[in-house]
Amino acid sequence: MTVQQAKQKNNQQQGKKAKKPKTAITPTRAENFPEWYQSVISSADMAENSATRGCMVIKPYGYAIWEHFQQELNSRIKKHGVKNAYFPLLIPLRFFEKEAEHVDGFAKECAVVTHHRLEPDSENGGLKPAGELTEPMIIRPTSETIIGESFSNWINSYRDLPLKINQWANVMRWEMRPRMFLRTSEFMWQEGHNAFATATEADEDSRKMLAMYEEFAKNVMAIPMIAGEKTADERFPGAVATYTIEAILQDGKALQSATSHNLGQNFSTSANISFQSQDGEEKLAWTTSWGMTSRMIGAMIMMHADDDGLIVPPKVAPHQVYIIPVIHDDADRSDILNYCENLSKRLQDQDIRVELDASEKRTPDKMWGCIKQGVPLRVEIGKREMEAGNITHTRRDIGRDSKTTETVDAFCGKVTGILDDMQQSMYDVAYARTMSMIHDVKTLDEAHAFFADKNNVGQVRFDASLLQDEAFADLMKEFSVTPRCLIFANEGKVLVGRSY
Amino acid sequence: MTVQQAKQKNNQQQGKKAKKPKTAITPTRAENFPEWYQSVISSADMAENSATRGCMVIKPYGYAIWEHFQQELNSRIKKHGVKNAYFPLLIPLRFFEKEAEHVDGFAKECAVVTHHRLEPDSENGGLKPAGELTEPMIIRPTSETIIGESFSNWINSYRDLPLKINQWANVMRWEMRPRMFLRTSEFMWQEGHNAFATATEADEDSRKMLAMYEEFAKNVMAIPMIAGEKTADERFPGAVATYTIEAILQDGKALQSATSHNLGQNFSTSANISFQSQDGEEKLAWTTSWGMTSRMIGAMIMMHADDDGLIVPPKVAPHQVYIIPVIHDDADRSDILNYCENLSKRLQDQDIRVELDASEKRTPDKMWGCIKQGVPLRVEIGKREMEAGNITHTRRDIGRDSKTTETVDAFCGKVTGILDDMQQSMYDVAYARTMSMIHDVKTLDEAHAFFADKNNVGQVRFDASLLQDEAFADLMKEFSVTPRCLIFANEGKVLVGRSY
Repeated sequence: MTVQQAKQKNNQQQGKKAKKPKTAITPTRAENFPEWYQSVISSADMAENSATRGCMVIKPYGYAIWEHFQQELNSRIKKHGVKNAYFPLLIPLRFFEKEAEHVDGFAKECAVVTHHRLEPDSENGGLKPAGELTEPMIIRPTSETIIGESFSNWINSYRDLPLKINQWANVMRWEMRPRMFLRTSEFMWQEGHNAFATATEADEDSRKMLAMYEEFAKNVMAIPMIAGEKTADERFPGAVATYTIEAILQDGKALQSATSHNLGQNFSTSANISFQSQDGEEKLAWTTSWGMTSRMIGAMIMMHADDDGLIVPPKVAPHQVYIIPVIHDDADRSDILNYCENLSKRLQDQDIRVELDASEKRTPDKMWGCIKQGVPLRVEIGKREMEAGNITHTRRDIGRDSKTTETVDAFCGKVTGILDDMQQSMYDVAYARTMSMIHDVKTLDEAHAFFADKNNVGQVRFDASLLQDEAFADLMKEFSVTPRCLIFANEGKVLVGRSY
Repeated sequence: MTVQQAKQKNNQQQGKKAKKPKTAITPTRAENFPEWYQSVISSADMAENSATRGCMVIKPYGYAIWEHFQQELNSRIKKHGVKNAYFPLLIPLRFFEKEAEHVDGFAKECAVVTHHRLEPDSENGGLKPAGELTEPMIIRPTSETIIGESFSNWINSYRDLPLKINQWANVMRWEMRPRMFLRTSEFMWQEGHNAFATATEADEDSRKMLAMYEEFAKNVMAIPMIAGEKTADERFPGAVATYTIEAILQDGKALQSATSHNLGQNFSTSANISFQSQDGEEKLAWTTSWGMTSRMIGAMIMMHADDDGLIVPPKVAPHQVYIIPVIHDDADRSDILNYCENLSKRLQDQDIRVELDASEKRTPDKMWGCIKQGVPLRVEIGKREMEAGNITHTRRDIGRDSKTTETVDAFCGKVTGILDDMQQSMYDVAYARTMSMIHDVKTLDEAHAFFADKNNVGQVRFDASLLQDEAFADLMKEFSVTPRCLIFANEGKVLVGRSY
C-alpha cells in the first residue's frame, strides 16, 4: 500500500466509524511518515540518537542487520577481484586541498582536528584543547585524497594495473539535520578505489560496480532501484561521471542508495598517480570510486516496514525464525520448551538463524516484539501443537493470512523455501509500488501540475532535454525537487522528484 | 632460536669464515631487531607508514590477516553471550571529564576536534578551520564514557543485567614515537563493555574474558602468554583491577597483548548506571571493559618471524597453501597450469585457502615472495612432478628439512593435518623460548645483575613483596623495566622486564 492509498483508506475509515485502526506503530505512515520512521526504529530496538550531536548509537539488533549486510556485500566485492585494506582516519589538510572541486564540495561539513592533547583550563575550570597542530587534519568524509597518495607509491608500471582496493570504514560529514541511518554526521560505509590504464576500462568498471550494487539491493535487501547517471550539478565533487541507484520509498521520495564515480584523471593528476605504459611512456592512471553506506538500512525500513513495524528481508534478518512457546499451565513448561528446543536445533542444522524466546515475558509481548522487529517467520508452539506434533507459523510480510498449522517435519522440509519466497515476494511488492510511483509527463507544465497536487506521491519521468528549459529551475525551487538520474533503462529520460 | 643464540651463532660464524649467512631479510634479528621488524613488514607487503603522522596504511596482505583474526575472535566473543553494537567516534569533552582518573590517563594523547568546517584563509591562502564548536570533542581513545551514557539509559532493572556489549572500532591515542602495528596513533580494536548486578560477577567475568584472550592467543595466533594482574601503577585509568596477557618476544621484551578491566563502580558512578534490584533497592552496576587490538599482529611478527621474513600461523594465514608452477619449457605451460589448477580446486574443496601464482614472475621471485610472506605451505610443481603425479611441498617454519615430494592424493589426504601440526608446532617452539626467557631471581641485586649484563635476554621473575623495596624504583629507572604482571600461574610472583 502506498502512503497515498493508506491516506485514502484512513480517511474512508475515519469517515465510516471515526475509529483508528489498531497498529503497533504510532503514528502510522499515513499520519506522519517521518515520525513513523523514528518510531519503527525505536520499536525494533535498532538504534537511538546519541549524546554526540548528529551521531547515532547502533544497538545490537540494528548492528546485526548491518553485519549480515556487510558479509553479503563484502563477498560480492571480493568476487570482483577487489582487496580490502585500511587507510588513516585523519587526512592532513594539504592533501585534502589538492583537488579543488573536491575540497569545495566537502569544506562545509568537515570535522577538523586542531589539537593533540588536553590541559587544565585555569580560567574556566575543566580541560581545554592544547598542543596545537602545525597543520590541521580532517576526519575523512571520503578517502580519495589519502588513498591517492598510497596509489601514487604503489603504481609504477602498467603491470600494477588494474588496482582494486576497498575499505570498510567510518566517515564523518557534519550534519545539521541528522536522521538516524539516513543522514548522520558519522556513518559506516565501504569505499572502493580502483585505478586503470585506460579511460574505457575506468568507465566500464565504474558502471560494473554500480551493477553490483543494483544486484545486491535487489537480491539481498529486496529493494528495486532506478539506476542511472547523475546530471552534472549532482555529481560527486571531482568526478567526471557519477552513476547512482535510487530507491523510491513508500512516501514517494527518492533515496540515493549507492554511487559509483568515474573520476577520470582528476585525482590521478592531483595525487600524481602515474605509470609506465607497455610502450615505455609515462601516463596518468584513470581512477574510480564507489561506495554504499549504512543509510541502506534506512532505505530498507522506508521501503518495507508497515504500521506494525519493521519487516526485514530474510537474507539480512538477525533472526529468520522466532520461536514463541505458548505456556498456559506451568506443568507443561518443560515439555513445551524441550519441543521448542528440538525444533530450534533442527533449524540451526539447516543454517537457519533461529531465536527461541524462553524469557519470562508475556506471550502477547513476545508476539508483538517479534512483529515490531520484523522477524520473517514467527512460530508459536502451545500444548495443542505439541501434542499433535505440530507448529503454527506466520509470515511477517503477509501476516494473519499466512498463518499455517502443520507438522514439524512438513515445516522443516519447506522453511528454506518459505524464506526464499518471502525474500522474492518482498521484492515484487516493492517493485510494483516503485513502478506505480513513477509518473510519465510530457511537459514541465504537467510536471508542475503533478507536484502541485498534494495527493500525488512519487516521482516524475520526462524527456531529459527539458532539463535545459528555464522553467525547470523554477520547478526545482518551488517543489524542492531535483533530477535524481538520467535513467539507464529509459534512454533520454530523467527521473525528477523529492529526495532524502 | 632466541636473539641471544642467534647473536652467538652469528659471532661464531663470523669468527670462522667472516661470511654472513644469506637471509632474505636485512638486517637480521641479531644485527638490529627493530630494523629487522620494519623490514619483515615491508618485505611481506603488510603495511607502510602513511602521510598522516603516526598512522599506518594496512595493505591488503596485512589486512587479510586482520580479517581472519577478527573472524576468529568475534566468534569467541559471541559465544560468551556478547552482542556487537556501535557507538560514536567523537566524545563530547564533558563526558570524557566525568571520570577523573580516566581523563588524567588519556588527556596527553587526545586528538581534539574543535571546528566543523573549513573556509578560505585570506591571510595565508588555502583553507583554515571555521565553525568553532561550543564544546570540543575527543576522538575516542576508548569508549567507557560514551558507552556508559547509553548503559545508564538501557539499564533500569536487575532483569537488564548482565549486559554484554562489544564494538569493533578504530581508536586514536596520539603517539609521538609510532611503530607499525605495535603503536600507532590510530589503531583497530574491539572493546567489550559488560555490566553486572554484583561485584563478584564483574570480577569473575573480567577474568573470564582474559582467559578467552589467552585461549585465542594460544590456539589462533600460536602465541604463549603470561597471564596476570597489573600492579596498581600499571592499571587502566579508572579501573580497580586490570588483568593482562603478556607475550615475551624474540628480543626478550614483553608486549601487553590484551587487557580486561574490572572497573568496579567507578564508571557506573560517573555515568549513573543504576538499576532496581530484585528487592526493590536502587543500586549502582558493576562494570568491566576488555580489549584486544591490531598490535597482536605486531606480536605475531616478533614472536614467529625469522631472518627470512614472516611466518603466519595457518589459522590466520591469508593463503595457507601457495602453489608455484615451475615451467622451464613454454610447451609444458598449459599442462602444468592445468595440473596446478586441479590441485587448487581439490584444496579449496577442503576449505583450504590456496593461492596459485600463475603470474609472469620468475620462479625464484615467487619462491622468495612466498617465504617472505610466511605462507605456511609452499607447493612446487614442475614437469617431473606432473609426470609422476606428484607435488613437492615445504613447510615455512621448518624449511628445507620438511621438503617432501609425494603424490597429489597423499598430499590432499594429509594437508589439513600438516597445517594443524604446524599451528601446534609454532606454539610449542614459541612456548619453549618464552619459558627459557623467564629468569628466576631471589633478590633485587640478582635482578640488577641480570639486566646489567647485555648478553641477557628476557624477563625476571621474583617475589612480589620485593616491589615494595626502595631499590625496586632504582631498578626500574636504571634499566627502563616495569612490573609486567603479578603472575596468575605463579602465586606471589611478579614478572619484570623491558616492554613495548
